[in-house]
Amino acid sequence: MAANHAPAPFNPSTRVLLGPGPSEVPPRVLAAMGYPLLGHLDPEFVAMMDETQGFLRQVFKTENRLTMAVSGTGSAGMEAVVVNLIEPGDKMLVCVNGVFGARMVDVAQRAGADVHEINRPYGEVFDPEEVRRALAAIQPKLIGIIHAETSTGAWQPIEEIAKIAHEHGAMIAIDTVTSLAGVPVEIDAWGIDAAYSGTQKCLSCPPGLAPVTFSPRAAEVISTRKTKVQSWYLDMQMIQRYWGSDRVYHHTAPISMNYALREALALVIEEGLEARQARHMLNHKALKAGLAAMGLGYATAEGHQLPQLNCVLIPDGIDDMVVRKRLLAEWGIEIGGGLGAFKGKAWRIGLMGYGSRPQNVTLVLAALETCLRDLGAKVEPGAALAVASAAYSQAK
Amino acid sequence: MAANHAPAPFNPSTRVLLGPGPSEVPPRVLAAMGYPLLGHLDPEFVAMMDETQGFLRQVFKTENRLTMAVSGTGSAGMEAVVVNLIEPGDKMLVCVNGVFGARMVDVAQRAGADVHEINRPYGEVFDPEEVRRALAAIQPKLIGIIHAETSTGAWQPIEEIAKIAHEHGAMIAIDTVTSLAGVPVEIDAWGIDAAYSGTQKCLSCPPGLAPVTFSPRAAEVISTRKTKVQSWYLDMQMIQRYWGSDRVYHHTAPISMNYALREALALVIEEGLEARQARHMLNHKALKAGLAAMGLGYATAEGHQLPQLNCVLIPDGIDDMVVRKRLLAEWGIEIGGGLGAFKGKAWRIGLMGYGSRPQNVTLVLAALETCLRDLGAKVEPGAALAVASAAYSQAK
Repeated sequence: MAANHAPAPFNPSTRVLLGPGPSEVPPRVLAAMGYPLLGHLDPEFVAMMDETQGFLRQVFKTENRLTMAVSGTGSAGMEAVVVNLIEPGDKMLVCVNGVFGARMVDVAQRAGADVHEINRPYGEVFDPEEVRRALAAIQPKLIGIIHAETSTGAWQPIEEIAKIAHEHGAMIAIDTVTSLAGVPVEIDAWGIDAAYSGTQKCLSCPPGLAPVTFSPRAAEVISTRKTKVQSWYLDMQMIQRYWGSDRVYHHTAPISMNYALREALALVIEEGLEARQARHMLNHKALKAGLAAMGLGYATAEGHQLPQLNCVLIPDGIDDMVVRKRLLAEWGIEIGGGLGAFKGKAWRIGLMGYGSRPQNVTLVLAALETCLRDLGAKVEPGAALAVASAAYSQAK
Repeated sequence: MAANHAPAPFNPSTRVLLGPGPSEVPPRVLAAMGYPLLGHLDPEFVAMMDETQGFLRQVFKTENRLTMAVSGTGSAGMEAVVVNLIEPGDKMLVCVNGVFGARMVDVAQRAGADVHEINRPYGEVFDPEEVRRALAAIQPKLIGIIHAETSTGAWQPIEEIAKIAHEHGAMIAIDTVTSLAGVPVEIDAWGIDAAYSGTQKCLSCPPGLAPVTFSPRAAEVISTRKTKVQSWYLDMQMIQRYWGSDRVYHHTAPISMNYALREALALVIEEGLEARQARHMLNHKALKAGLAAMGLGYATAEGHQLPQLNCVLIPDGIDDMVVRKRLLAEWGIEIGGGLGAFKGKAWRIGLMGYGSRPQNVTLVLAALETCLRDLGAKVEPGAALAVASAAYSQAK
């Protein structure tokens, strides 16, 4: 390789990230990514890890000692929860109503679980009674369910199902990748045994870490396993010795990503969880009103629509990719396409974390109106913006 | 949680990172960490992934199509290589002469391999003939060996062992976490079937990604597996569909870390691999001469000492922690302690990537001289700096 051949610089365009994640990252978090590095055993770094664990406990609303960030994205968090709680042959019940429930089935099967699943169509949520029947029939060690199904925008009520799981002796693990810091997540109040999340949704941190938390019962299950966790990298028995006071080296922590997560969590705490959730709800209502004024409805069942992930039916005669390509090319707006059964049929408009702002609601409504009108849809000019604006005025 | 409670800002001290990694990160790479985010399916991001794959092929010196960055640290790279190439019951031979060889044994056992190991004491390397005997006796599917053993600073010759592995029908996987871009790594010329690395060593990028490369033979083994890869997160059959032209979503790529890796690789290419390796060797020679002038010798066998990781015996009567704590407190210098059999007995002085600079060599020699003299060691004042300076003058 010849020296001094300089590749062209990389200059990413500025995007308005209104898809299913990554979400927009606020300036303070971007700045933290660029701080000079500390070593992974530096006293200042491990003190920051302690602080981060405290912040995570506040955001997860838990006292769980075993609360930390796994060094991978949200899917690594899912795998960490499953492979640590499951030993080969253990029964696991998975509730599948979208791509991420189906992913959990796959992860659990690879972990050697005896996996049973119950299913709901895309866009629907599970009823506690159908979960009760499955639990009674299967008697699993663990039930896994998605709190916020990123593929459908479905917001699953958890509290009652957690209670039923415990009545049947099962532990419950929940996917909070898209829910954490956007809608209420109450690990202790609901009695959740394990939860994982991602950094790139309502925490508005770049992707790369997966916050996880395990109840004392789950921690006990992990510490009394008969078999080794199949993943060395995700083995919580070893990882907790690094995050705990022993500080035993396991793997080199992603230093900069942990800086960013700390800063993102600090911003959540400064804003206040309840205020942040209210902000997500307000911007959702304005968006939803605006979409309705253009004749756009949700693919997700009424009453179970996540404020931070709006899964919208694409109108008949409108081509998914034509619209998404124009949004990106003309306004730099990224919205998500449908996944799985919703591919080509729905858009996913994320209003997550820092991205959940009135100017983004206004921009995406204005851009969508332009696209739809140019494609011949009957959309009254300005109606969407007027109702969205009214939604903000009413909230004042 | 009350709103508007602002945690105190986090202000990490500026360190001189001369341990076993993370290494110092150059300003251009830190800046890239703070670029605004693109989506993981954005045309600009996937074009950058293509560019990164091209850069990785240049740095690994390979034409391997299956070359990319795994979304975890170097240990995730190790696990990715093992779990993708091994199916339960497969024989694997692992060469263990330090912590990372031992880690590979653990990872392979968890993957269900029938693991055989050969051992060398810490600080030594393997002789091709002993590897030949083990290969002949065991007839494994895969042999794993550490090119640069980060726990001992041992630099293992690979080429002959790769040849012998192929003569016995085995694939060979090598750990290049600490070697890549610091000393020659010749994936194609040596006939390596799989290699993994980390970003936080001689690439001088923050930790968080693991470059991996698989030969066509290894790729064929992966694509014709009878069983699913036990890790969903590290399944190369799925990951390659995202990194390849299909662009099928697998997990959300760590966007900012990939920006940083691209920038770090661009810097390697601008400098030139050979020039970078020569720089590592020159700074090593200056450091080694200076250490010798203070009576400090290497824990690693002569002729097999990595230029980027100098594993130095702690003199009798000198307390490991007293010195390392003072280096950190007074000069902000981080050097590594010993791992495993070398705990308390050796220091690991890293001169990796951007950190491999004359000012760092001079600084660490000066600081060590002060510490050792204050602890009563017989060290001639200024001798270390004089011979280090002479080493640089001779090289001109």
